[in-house]
Amino acid sequence: MLGLSSYAGVMESLMNRAEEQQPSSPLTNSRSKKQESSKNQKPRLVGGFVLVHAGAGYHSESKAKEYKHVCKRACQRAVDRLKAGALAVEAVAAALVELEDSPFTNAGMGSNLNLSGEIECDASIMDGKSLHYGAVGAISGIKNPVLVANRLLSEAQKGKLSAGRIPPCFLVGRGAHDWAVSHGIPPCPSEKMATKFSLSAYKRNKRKMELAEKMDTGHNQTKRRRQSNENENGSGGLDTVGAVVVDLEGNVAAAVSSGGLAMKHPGRVGQAAHYGCGCWAENAYNMNPYSTAVSTSGCGEHLIRTMLARECSAAMQSEDAHQALLEAMQNKFISSPFLSSEDRVLGGVIVLRCCRCVEAPPSQNIQGILVEFLWSHTTESMCVGYMSAQDSKAKTHISRLPPGTVPGQCLAIEGGVCRLMSVVE
Amino acid sequence: MLGLSSYAGVMESLMNRAEEQQPSSPLTNSRSKKQESSKNQKPRLVGGFVLVHAGAGYHSESKAKEYKHVCKRACQRAVDRLKAGALAVEAVAAALVELEDSPFTNAGMGSNLNLSGEIECDASIMDGKSLHYGAVGAISGIKNPVLVANRLLSEAQKGKLSAGRIPPCFLVGRGAHDWAVSHGIPPCPSEKMATKFSLSAYKRNKRKMELAEKMDTGHNQTKRRRQSNENENGSGGLDTVGAVVVDLEGNVAAAVSSGGLAMKHPGRVGQAAHYGCGCWAENAYNMNPYSTAVSTSGCGEHLIRTMLARECSAAMQSEDAHQALLEAMQNKFISSPFLSSEDRVLGGVIVLRCCRCVEAPPSQNIQGILVEFLWSHTTESMCVGYMSAQDSKAKTHISRLPPGTVPGQCLAIEGGVCRLMSVVE
Repeated sequence: MLGLSSYAGVMESLMNRAEEQQPSSPLTNSRSKKQESSKNQKPRLVGGFVLVHAGAGYHSESKAKEYKHVCKRACQRAVDRLKAGALAVEAVAAALVELEDSPFTNAGMGSNLNLSGEIECDASIMDGKSLHYGAVGAISGIKNPVLVANRLLSEAQKGKLSAGRIPPCFLVGRGAHDWAVSHGIPPCPSEKMATKFSLSAYKRNKRKMELAEKMDTGHNQTKRRRQSNENENGSGGLDTVGAVVVDLEGNVAAAVSSGGLAMKHPGRVGQAAHYGCGCWAENAYNMNPYSTAVSTSGCGEHLIRTMLARECSAAMQSEDAHQALLEAMQNKFISSPFLSSEDRVLGGVIVLRCCRCVEAPPSQNIQGILVEFLWSHTTESMCVGYMSAQDSKAKTHISRLPPGTVPGQCLAIEGGVCRLMSVVE
Repeated sequence: MLGLSSYAGVMESLMNRAEEQQPSSPLTNSRSKKQESSKNQKPRLVGGFVLVHAGAGYHSESKAKEYKHVCKRACQRAVDRLKAGALAVEAVAAALVELEDSPFTNAGMGSNLNLSGEIECDASIMDGKSLHYGAVGAISGIKNPVLVANRLLSEAQKGKLSAGRIPPCFLVGRGAHDWAVSHGIPPCPSEKMATKFSLSAYKRNKRKMELAEKMDTGHNQTKRRRQSNENENGSGGLDTVGAVVVDLEGNVAAAVSSGGLAMKHPGRVGQAAHYGCGCWAENAYNMNPYSTAVSTSGCGEHLIRTMLARECSAAMQSEDAHQALLEAMQNKFISSPFLSSEDRVLGGVIVLRCCRCVEAPPSQNIQGILVEFLWSHTTESMCVGYMSAQDSKAKTHISRLPPGTVPGQCLAIEGGVCRLMSVVE
C-alpha cells in the first residue's frame, strides 16, 4: 500500500498543467457518432494524440537525455502520420519503429541478448476500430518486429487464405521470420541488431550467472534458487517500449515491443506478444462509453499472469480515470491473487481513454474529443512522452518512485487531459 | 440465435439422469473451508471428477467409437491419479497424455501437419490452486507437449532461477524443445509423430490448396480470398483435446493440447498456447464462490480473440450455470464484437464448476463437493467423456448440432451434476 497516498495527488496537479484542460461532457458512442456525422456533414478534423513509453524499469540519470529524446522522436513520427491522415493503427506502428530503432531501448535494435547470446524479440499491435490483433514472438533477424505484427493484423483483415484457411494472428520463431520476409519485410543480420551496450551487458550477466551457479555447487540448487538475492534481478533491463494513439476520427490503437528479459531462455515469449497482456485497444461501443488503449512494460511473467493491459482497459470504463487506474494497479497487479507468491511485482502501463464531447451549441459546429492520458508504474522509473497533433513538439518525462520506497510494492501514477477540437464544415 | 431454444432443455434432462443429483446448498469459500476442516478434523476424501474432450469439430460416425474410446481411457487415467491422491493439476496432465497419444486426435501423435509438412504443437495447463500456468507453442519433436507445459508450471512454482532470473511460463519453437530435453523430457523423432491418416490428409489438403491457387491465376487474389468457399474450411480438423479436473481437496485444474489448424503457417500459435484462451482454472476465492475450470477447442483465432476460456470461467460465477454458459457462448463468442467480420464462429468448451456443499447436519460428519459439468459448441459435433472417482467407468458422448442448423451460427449445450462425498473422520 506504500506510495499510494503520497502519489494520489500527482495527477490532479498535472491535470491542472495540461495544455487544454476541460471537464468531461456527455459521453457518446464514437461509432454511432461517426456514422451520424458522416451522414450529414463532413468534419474538418484537426486532432490526434500519442502517448509513448520507453519502458518501466530503471532509467539512469546519465541516459535520461537519450530516453527522452527517443520518446520525443517517436511522438513526432506518430503525429506526422496522423497529420497525413493516417489511422491510429498506422501512427502507433510508426511510433514503435522509432522506439525499436533506438539502441538505448530494449526492443528491436539493441535488445537484450538471451542465454545463447541471441536476440529474440516480441511485439504486438491492436486496432481498437476493427479489434484485430497481430503478434510475433521470439523472432530473430528482423529490425522492426512491430512491422511484422502490423502486417499480420492487416493481412488478417483481408479475410481467409486460399482453400478457406484462416490467417494467423500470432507467429513465432523461424516461421515468423520466414513469413515476414515472404511478405516483403527485409531480414536484418542478427549481429547488426546487437549494440556495444547489449553485448557488454550480456558478458556481465553471464559472469554473474556463472558466479551464482558456482556458489551453488555442493548445495541444494533448488533451495538456493528460492533464496537468491532479489536485488540481482533488480528492475533494470525491463525497458520495453510501447505507444497508444487516438486518431483524427477518434479511433484508438496500441502497440508494444520488447527484447525480453536479459538472459532469458531461448524461445521464451514475454507479455509483449501475449494477447491482452502487452497491449489493448477498444473503440467505444455499446456498453463502453470510452475508447481505451493500453500498453504495458515490466516483468513479462507478472504482466502475463495478471493480463494487465486488458484489465486496465476494462477498468477505464468507470467515471474517474485516475481512481480507476490506481485501483486496477493496486488490486489487479500489486495485490493480485495471481502474483501472491511474488514479493515484488514489477510493471508499468500507459493508458489513454477518450470520448466525444460537445463544448459549444450545435450551431457553432464545433466538436471535440476529450483525451485523458495516464501512466503508472511499480518500477523505479518509467520514461514517457506525449504529443497532440496540435502541438509543435512533444513533452517527455521520467516518472520516478520517491527515494526510499520499494519498487514492486508501491506505485506512481500521473497523467493529464487534452481536448482535441474539430470544426464541422 | 438458431438452435438456442431447441437446446435449452437438454441440460435439464441430462441433469436428471446424472448419477447423484442434488440441489445446490449454501456456498462456501473452498480455501477458507479447507483451512477450517484441516484445523480440527482430517477428512477421508473419496471424491474427484474429470471431464475431457476430443475436440469441437466434426467427428465422423465411422470414427465415433475411437473418439469415445480415447475419452474413456483419458478419464480413467485421471481418476487413477486422483485415487492415488494426486492433485488436480497432475490428474489433468495424465488425462491429456492419453488424449495426445491417440492417433485419432489432433494433438501430440497424429497432429495436423503444417504448410511445410511438419508437426508443431501447442499446449497449456493451469492450476486453479496456485494460479500458475505453463504453455508451449509451435513445439516439434516432443510426443507429449502437455508434459512440457506442466514442467514449466512446476518449475515456475519453485521460484527464481540463478542470479534472480524469473522462470519462463511460455516457451516456443526450438527453444521450447531444447528446454524440454534439458529437463529430462525425451525427444521424439518427428516422423514417428505423423500417422498414415495425417500424412494422407496433408497430401489431400496440399492438392486442394494448389488447385485453389491455380484457379486464382490471372485474377485478383486478394478479392478471391474473401470469396473463397466457406465449406472448404469446414469444421473438420479442429479436434484439439483438453480436460478439466476437480481433485479430492476441491482444487481445480485445466489443460488443452493441439496440433493446430491443418496447413497452418509454420510458427503459427493457436489458442491452446494462449493464456486465457485455451484453458483456465481458478479455485474459489474471496468474491468468487465457485471454483471453475474451462478447456476450449475449435478455430484458434476465434478462441484467441474472444479469450473464450477466461470469459466462460468468469461467467460461471453467476448462479445458474447452464444459463451463464449459454449467455457467454452467445454474447461473448457467436455475437462477440471481436468476431463481427466472421460469418461462422467455430468453437467449443468444456466447463466444470464446483463448490462445497453441506447436505447433512454437522453431527453426521459428511461433507461434499457439488460439481456441475457442461459442454457447449458451435461446431458440428463435440466428443466428451466424464467420470467421477466413485464410478467404475467413464461415460462418453458425441454431442451434435441438429441436422440442418448452420455450424458457427448456433450452439448446443449439455451437461450434468455430480456430488462428491467425503466422510470427515
